[in-house]
Amino acid sequence: MRTIDWDVEKNCVVLVDQTKLPTEYTTYNATTVTELVDSIKMLRVRGAPALGAAGAYGVALAAHRNDAKTFDKFLDTVVEDAGRVANARPTAVNLSREVEQVLSVLRQCTSIPEARRRAVTVAEEIAEADVNRNKQLGENGATLLEDGDTVMTHCNAGALATVDWGTALGVVYAAHDQGKDIDVIANETRPLNQGSRITTVELEENGVKTTLIPDNASGLCMQQGMVDAVIVGADRVVLSGGDEFGNQGVVFNKIGTYKHAVIADRHNLPFVVAVPHSTIDINSTADDVEIEQRSPDELREIYGTQNAPAETDVFNPAFDATPMELVDLVITETGVHEPPLEESQFREDEHVVA
Amino acid sequence: MRTIDWDVEKNCVVLVDQTKLPTEYTTYNATTVTELVDSIKMLRVRGAPALGAAGAYGVALAAHRNDAKTFDKFLDTVVEDAGRVANARPTAVNLSREVEQVLSVLRQCTSIPEARRRAVTVAEEIAEADVNRNKQLGENGATLLEDGDTVMTHCNAGALATVDWGTALGVVYAAHDQGKDIDVIANETRPLNQGSRITTVELEENGVKTTLIPDNASGLCMQQGMVDAVIVGADRVVLSGGDEFGNQGVVFNKIGTYKHAVIADRHNLPFVVAVPHSTIDINSTADDVEIEQRSPDELREIYGTQNAPAETDVFNPAFDATPMELVDLVITETGVHEPPLEESQFREDEHVVA
Repeated sequence: MRTIDWDVEKNCVVLVDQTKLPTEYTTYNATTVTELVDSIKMLRVRGAPALGAAGAYGVALAAHRNDAKTFDKFLDTVVEDAGRVANARPTAVNLSREVEQVLSVLRQCTSIPEARRRAVTVAEEIAEADVNRNKQLGENGATLLEDGDTVMTHCNAGALATVDWGTALGVVYAAHDQGKDIDVIANETRPLNQGSRITTVELEENGVKTTLIPDNASGLCMQQGMVDAVIVGADRVVLSGGDEFGNQGVVFNKIGTYKHAVIADRHNLPFVVAVPHSTIDINSTADDVEIEQRSPDELREIYGTQNAPAETDVFNPAFDATPMELVDLVITETGVHEPPLEESQFREDEHVVA
Repeated sequence: MRTIDWDVEKNCVVLVDQTKLPTEYTTYNATTVTELVDSIKMLRVRGAPALGAAGAYGVALAAHRNDAKTFDKFLDTVVEDAGRVANARPTAVNLSREVEQVLSVLRQCTSIPEARRRAVTVAEEIAEADVNRNKQLGENGATLLEDGDTVMTHCNAGALATVDWGTALGVVYAAHDQGKDIDVIANETRPLNQGSRITTVELEENGVKTTLIPDNASGLCMQQGMVDAVIVGADRVVLSGGDEFGNQGVVFNKIGTYKHAVIADRHNLPFVVAVPHSTIDINSTADDVEIEQRSPDELREIYGTQNAPAETDVFNPAFDATPMELVDLVITETGVHEPPLEESQFREDEHVVA
């Protein structure tokens, strides 16, 4: 099944509950906007492209869980609920972008039933477009991989980070489907362990040989020649670095990405970012991007067991910033781009809705 | 109490059981050589200097748990047991070094009672010397820190990694005792979480303000100017890099150290290694040092909960290798040394036994 989908009978959002992996592969029905917002915050659903779909379906959900009597009142409430969805997590651009995308369609409607129908249709189109983009992105990236290559990846930029197929792992799957023998080294990705809990599961289900390492071992692996390329996804790519990074673009991705990029640079290994155009935010600079701080308890406890004294101060940023000078290639659905990226390449948003 | 000590009534080794931290601060009595070897392997006691003392006390334990009737037979059995202690973990040089130190004294004895007495006495001297060395090392290093500095550290090179006081954290404690306001950023140190479980506990007990971060966040912290220096201990320092690293020395320390060193280098932050002379191995090159591989289950499970599919392949090296070109200073009990280190500086081992 898809990572996130619309249940046409119950009119609710159904998603793979990724907090239950690797032990259980189960789904969760988000039947209210609050349930969806909580699901996003607690990472039942995560990954920039999947969050884009969650944003779109979230507006559809807001349209269905709404008992306003007039269209104006209906729209006001939907906009308010949509704002809660868009702000559930601040870093990935896709979430707020796709929320806005569906809202713009609703604003053109004239009745509540029409708005509900259109919201679901547009959300479905956004989800479908994500799968198609990822397949194309994978094909584009697969040309870079050779039979026998070992790819290191961080966090999970696979099928479960998208509606289906994946970005960084989509490249691996496409190469695998071309008959190339590709191994993957999956970083555990503390503190939420998406690498060990999610990436290993989906790679193994797809028949890709996978080795799990602690994040701390990525340097040794590169130093010892065990890695041919590092491929990661991203939550937001900006083309201007603002005060901190100057003219160059910046890749915001899961905390730890920056370190892998610096080490890959030291060992002259290609550091590759695989993202759909929808993750490239040409309207912001690095200064505009908020890096989400998450709960100290994600470090103080692991799976309910105390991992540090209960009152320990914790700094727990969810993302970090990798300057484009460390990025060798950016793979998108339109091709393989060598930084610096030009705004003109990404200005035409391939939105499904005109 | 000390991290490791000899119980004169029970004639056994008593140690702080570090696998129980941060929840419980308890001691464990190793009453047989096998119990001590298991305690070393499972990291009840860890840290190169503490392992040195464990090696010394291990020979004393072997001498007491030995029912040979003749001195020759006694010595054969002690040597055999001592070999098991020395080989319990391969990377830290101190373990085998201090085992050999006590054995060399026993070989000069002529009776079993004398050998037992001498073994305990020499082990106590080795433990005492460790504490004194660390205090001196701390004083030497503290001159480098200024009021208001923030030190990042990896793993635990504190009182609990030594008999008492610590190496990297000994520097912090000495500066703190001089009235300097020093903050510490403690890396979690996956997969065994010595940073979150042990370093936080002992720093807070000593009144040093501490912030815990996931290892993945060390790059962001350095990039954002939150760090003034990185100070770590080491398990073994060699002065010749062998085939892989050429003429330069190499620091073997907890997995992840290499990454922090590379990032510190990028941000022009001092990367400092604090070790006693006993950790500097002038008789080996980097080629001679075995990097311990630990159980896949350290990644597959965390505190008994599944963290990855049960059959996932895992690469789990306990240590990595940092070339000396990335090290700005080496602090020892004799002073602050700027690499490259000269063999002549470390040839005179300050062993307590002539």
